[in-house]
Amino acid sequence: MKATIYDVAREAGVSIAAVSQVMNGKGKISEERRAEILKVMEKLNYQPSVIASALTGKKTYTLGLLVPDISNPFFAEIARAVEDQGHEMGYSLVICSTDNKDERVERYLSLLQQKSVDGMIIGTGMDNKEMLKPLMDRSIPIVMIAREMQDLALHTVVCDDFVGGCMAAQHFVALGHKRLAILAEHTKVTSSRERVKGFVHTLEEAGMTLSDHHVRNCRYTAEDGKREALELLELPPAERPTALFCCNDMLAIGALQAAKQLKLRVPEDVSVVGFDNTILASVTDPPLTTIAQPIEPMGKKVVDLLLLELKKKSQDKQRVVMRPELIVRQSTGAPGHVE
Amino acid sequence: MKATIYDVAREAGVSIAAVSQVMNGKGKISEERRAEILKVMEKLNYQPSVIASALTGKKTYTLGLLVPDISNPFFAEIARAVEDQGHEMGYSLVICSTDNKDERVERYLSLLQQKSVDGMIIGTGMDNKEMLKPLMDRSIPIVMIAREMQDLALHTVVCDDFVGGCMAAQHFVALGHKRLAILAEHTKVTSSRERVKGFVHTLEEAGMTLSDHHVRNCRYTAEDGKREALELLELPPAERPTALFCCNDMLAIGALQAAKQLKLRVPEDVSVVGFDNTILASVTDPPLTTIAQPIEPMGKKVVDLLLLELKKKSQDKQRVVMRPELIVRQSTGAPGHVE
Repeated sequence: MKATIYDVAREAGVSIAAVSQVMNGKGKISEERRAEILKVMEKLNYQPSVIASALTGKKTYTLGLLVPDISNPFFAEIARAVEDQGHEMGYSLVICSTDNKDERVERYLSLLQQKSVDGMIIGTGMDNKEMLKPLMDRSIPIVMIAREMQDLALHTVVCDDFVGGCMAAQHFVALGHKRLAILAEHTKVTSSRERVKGFVHTLEEAGMTLSDHHVRNCRYTAEDGKREALELLELPPAERPTALFCCNDMLAIGALQAAKQLKLRVPEDVSVVGFDNTILASVTDPPLTTIAQPIEPMGKKVVDLLLLELKKKSQDKQRVVMRPELIVRQSTGAPGHVE
Repeated sequence: MKATIYDVAREAGVSIAAVSQVMNGKGKISEERRAEILKVMEKLNYQPSVIASALTGKKTYTLGLLVPDISNPFFAEIARAVEDQGHEMGYSLVICSTDNKDERVERYLSLLQQKSVDGMIIGTGMDNKEMLKPLMDRSIPIVMIAREMQDLALHTVVCDDFVGGCMAAQHFVALGHKRLAILAEHTKVTSSRERVKGFVHTLEEAGMTLSDHHVRNCRYTAEDGKREALELLELPPAERPTALFCCNDMLAIGALQAAKQLKLRVPEDVSVVGFDNTILASVTDPPLTTIAQPIEPMGKKVVDLLLLELKKKSQDKQRVVMRPELIVRQSTGAPGHVE
């Protein structure tokens, strides 16, 4: 027998009006309470027409997530964290891979508006920030994860990239490295820029400098990392860096591949630190020392901020900065050659 | 100025009725034509209410994708392929990670019905196949990817797992291996069972047998693979397998870790073949010989079949079997010790 609204109300121990509020997305019911009632609906296989609810209540209980590439392990892990917290709160997730291209970002922003998603989580870079303005003018809630748009007032969840860069440099300095280099992402990626700044800042505090030649801008793939690392590691031994800080784990994998090709030992001849601590960091040989982003708490927090934004619009925007963590594995050690 | 239906019709070179059909999901318009008109809508930032269309035309242009875990690289790569083809055809994608747990599958199936998705792509195992029956009774289009439900009539796209298992065995036999072993996934995973069957079949044809002791059932993580591989590789040298066939790349990574821990060289002391050819296979050391699944064509095909199913229900169901490919990297070689 098909479950009715009465069955749901009885099972959840709430009034019919409360169940109706959940379906219509109206009323003052708390998000937690709403999630409980939704779970009862699912348990009883109660099928309200969410579409009809959306027409009256203007809510679809769907969130959009824009990332550069869902097949990139960092963003796949972000998506899993966002999905889990969204589902916990009764929202489902539409994913969109932008390849960091403005035209794809634009198409997806337009598509998600057509779908009447309740809000959007943006984890992709864009050259033209103006693209978000029309959405903001129309009061569509937007929050940012792992990326920043500093001149737009948006809730933002990031890892403290500057501190992450400092941690990498401190680790190398403590191990006794003197000749260091950086494989950075494209300069338009804000998170990568901050990591480089933190790294350089810490070196300067330790009285060390980094020549421009030793900061290499790559894109973000292992191939880019390998190519740039080869150039650095083919320098004469007296100039060759003994420590490479890579602004993501993929670039670090490229650096490991370059070292192997040149028959340099890791970490005896060259130490490598990555960033992100995706699944990739634990499967390389040697396993990668890296700066871990707190991916799961970041995903949870960004959903919570979006739901807050859905409830009341006028609040001050938060910039939540989560602390990264140095995870020491076997790709770093003291420099092996004393010169 | 806000674009109107007239602007869209003019720009697309079609009648207003055709644009209306696209919005209502009615009429005999072809999927290709619909996709073109949708692109014009996006370009002009035309905002029809998809929700209103859905109420009248019963279409939401949203597809659901159920996978065990979106943060697992294989399924993240599947999701990317499905997303791209869906977007090409004007559909967006809701992702659901089930952790292979029936209660999560059930909740998500119910949720996706509430969302009125136009169809579902299922790439997750389930113990209780009965869960899909109510959806099939209600004529909700369902297709399967990378998993099979042999007693249900559903369009299915799989890789030829049996042939993949044969390829792995042929590779080992050609290299001269005599003592082989398998790290399999849980016996309820149909794809893994077929891989094992194909492997064993080819060995028998070559006049070789595999003792039960040398077929290990794991779950699917690297930790499982490592634990089972350690047991096999700790056998006395005369009994130790010189070749391990692992039913996914994660298990193969576990096997590589086990070999390293025991100071066995890969491939001189033990050769390892994985399955899937995810990004992981190219970042291990040594890079992993593996059986590649044609992930991108599989994702594209499954979307095409679902759209076919959306158009007319009564057709015969297709089982599309795509051919895997042996990718030889550096984790396999001739057995190094002659005994």
